[in-house]
Amino acid sequence: MFFRLLFLLPEFPWSTRDPIQYPDSWGYPGVPVSRVVVALWLGSMAAAEGERKKVIIDTDPGIDDAMAIFVALRSPELQLLGLTTTFGNVHTALATRNALHLLEAVGRTDIPVAEGSHVTIKKAAKLRIASFVHGADGLGNQDFPPPAAKPVDQSAAAFMVEQANLYPGQVTVVALGPLTNLALAIELDPSFPKKIGQIIILGGAYSINGNVNPAAEANIFGDPDAADMVFTCGADILAVGLNVTHQVVLTGSAFCNVTISEAPFLHFDTSPFVTDADREKLEQCDSKYARYLCKIMGIYFDYHKDAYFIKGVYLHDPTTVIAAVNPSLLTCTEGVVRVQTVGITKGLTIFDNTKKRYGEITAWSGMPTVKVAVTVDAPAVVDLMMQRLMTDD
Amino acid sequence: MFFRLLFLLPEFPWSTRDPIQYPDSWGYPGVPVSRVVVALWLGSMAAAEGERKKVIIDTDPGIDDAMAIFVALRSPELQLLGLTTTFGNVHTALATRNALHLLEAVGRTDIPVAEGSHVTIKKAAKLRIASFVHGADGLGNQDFPPPAAKPVDQSAAAFMVEQANLYPGQVTVVALGPLTNLALAIELDPSFPKKIGQIIILGGAYSINGNVNPAAEANIFGDPDAADMVFTCGADILAVGLNVTHQVVLTGSAFCNVTISEAPFLHFDTSPFVTDADREKLEQCDSKYARYLCKIMGIYFDYHKDAYFIKGVYLHDPTTVIAAVNPSLLTCTEGVVRVQTVGITKGLTIFDNTKKRYGEITAWSGMPTVKVAVTVDAPAVVDLMMQRLMTDD
Repeated sequence: MFFRLLFLLPEFPWSTRDPIQYPDSWGYPGVPVSRVVVALWLGSMAAAEGERKKVIIDTDPGIDDAMAIFVALRSPELQLLGLTTTFGNVHTALATRNALHLLEAVGRTDIPVAEGSHVTIKKAAKLRIASFVHGADGLGNQDFPPPAAKPVDQSAAAFMVEQANLYPGQVTVVALGPLTNLALAIELDPSFPKKIGQIIILGGAYSINGNVNPAAEANIFGDPDAADMVFTCGADILAVGLNVTHQVVLTGSAFCNVTISEAPFLHFDTSPFVTDADREKLEQCDSKYARYLCKIMGIYFDYHKDAYFIKGVYLHDPTTVIAAVNPSLLTCTEGVVRVQTVGITKGLTIFDNTKKRYGEITAWSGMPTVKVAVTVDAPAVVDLMMQRLMTDD
Repeated sequence: MFFRLLFLLPEFPWSTRDPIQYPDSWGYPGVPVSRVVVALWLGSMAAAEGERKKVIIDTDPGIDDAMAIFVALRSPELQLLGLTTTFGNVHTALATRNALHLLEAVGRTDIPVAEGSHVTIKKAAKLRIASFVHGADGLGNQDFPPPAAKPVDQSAAAFMVEQANLYPGQVTVVALGPLTNLALAIELDPSFPKKIGQIIILGGAYSINGNVNPAAEANIFGDPDAADMVFTCGADILAVGLNVTHQVVLTGSAFCNVTISEAPFLHFDTSPFVTDADREKLEQCDSKYARYLCKIMGIYFDYHKDAYFIKGVYLHDPTTVIAAVNPSLLTCTEGVVRVQTVGITKGLTIFDNTKKRYGEITAWSGMPTVKVAVTVDAPAVVDLMMQRLMTDD
């Protein structure tokens, strides 16, 4: 890939490569910001040359889903093949409505929307909806009019399988909600894990507390059985968990006091974030993306203040899209992830680094490995998102 | 307590106190080694004055149990009220035999042994026994003769309750195996959690992989239901998990290559340990404790080489006893621990730091908090153990 060209730039000192890192051909962790700029410029060139990464976003909009979708639309590195919808922040029907509405709001009705499952892989209908995080409508209680467009006449799973068959090995699914649609795609076509290029999952809490309860992160909690199917399906998977996304904060005040209080042992230093107020910058900017987001994100700030006692919001979904835009902004480790599907820790992701030889066969033994994000260049992620959202097409 | 006297020593620079730390009146984390020496000297003085900490060790010997029991016997800071036995490394009947044998081997048959439960709190009889770690006999396959002494005519739980009533608030139970006996003590006397001074538990894996499987640590896995009862009983509890004990390594060779490979994200630097070969030192020493341990610990080294690819052994049990001898060698955080009792992560301990306000009531909500060890002064723990074992009474 074109990122390999970076090795030809002698004026940039190469950082020591960590032994455990993102092994994708695009990924050079520890890349300094100056090189990120070059990388993005090369990315734009590559995009102009038609080498854009084909992406499907599986989404439950959701305020940070809206941010993520806008970042994807504004990123020349990506070609957005479509949005597929799922339950999570809202019910699936509302997710579909919101996906269509968001595309309409920024004039991108050319992107198809395929509606996903209304129930979990085990047909459970009683689903947790996060109206206290994103509003009853999922988009900050703004009472937007219904969109004119309709979803395509194809399920989310069928759309994913179709695109994977059209472009084998080239499609990236960025999954921002529970993993039901991906599990259905695997059921629909058992060769889907081999045909899909990569699956980037916003899901799990690795070595830290969850956000639904101390054990579970919301997306995995939403359909633990589907998540366990996806994590063990053998596809090329990168999981981006709360341990990473809680480091990426859009600040709400120049004097905000950000502390990553929910990490039981890891205390991330977020001081680089507190010198600027990202929200104010967005509010003072006239792009249609920033204008729209500033309208809806008040409730999301309120939730973070109430739940985490911070004046800022976590950029879960945008970080995950940016993992597709510029993988070098994250480093990861590799191992087996299994999901607990019952009991008080239902929805918990347990990562096995496969380094210990256990005395007995375990539920992790012999399972395919996945990549799990460990570090993130958080200021670069925030900067990249701000750059993309603060300018118009 | 006498450790407060340390504040009167102006020649020692005080380290900055971490906001989350061991709040016990003995505990001053970050104490430099020089002060530890003073503390131990003061500890000996206090012991001479009859202020010894009354301790019951609940144990399943076990090679590192033997080390831990010997450390307790050799520590003037402790008064060993008795040993209670449980299943774990071996079945309970063998644990009782081994406890009696160990006391006999070092001439301390004055210490009573009370036999504990043979089954879990839910009466499960099929128990995992770690013969591949400690040998079929639990003590390195040495075929020791049966002990002459007998256990007292009282169950482990009854013994614990009796001692807690005799010395309310003064007895520390150091639990080195599954927590069945403690759960039975709570069932026997619901006021036991308030009467017992402290419970120090070797149990759990906090933010790292387990040792039975990627989710579970052996002692909690041995009886998850009992463990959940104990962790939520309201007693003053300190849990010492694998995240701490895997930092404390008795080295087996001057050129050993110790890596803490099973930690999924936390890579502990154990380089301080590789300059000396603790095993050789023990072998060259003539104390009865060292002589006995050198006889039995070969299989324990073999297991660590096979399972963790290290030339050294983890000092799980001795570290936990030393947490009673000198609490200042550990720092801890505080929160709620619940145990998963079913499914693939059965035996998993999930710690909630209680810092996030969750949207819903969770299994952790309103539960009593416990302390969980986070850091350990590993070289000081190893040194202290070596000092105690390398000299005779």
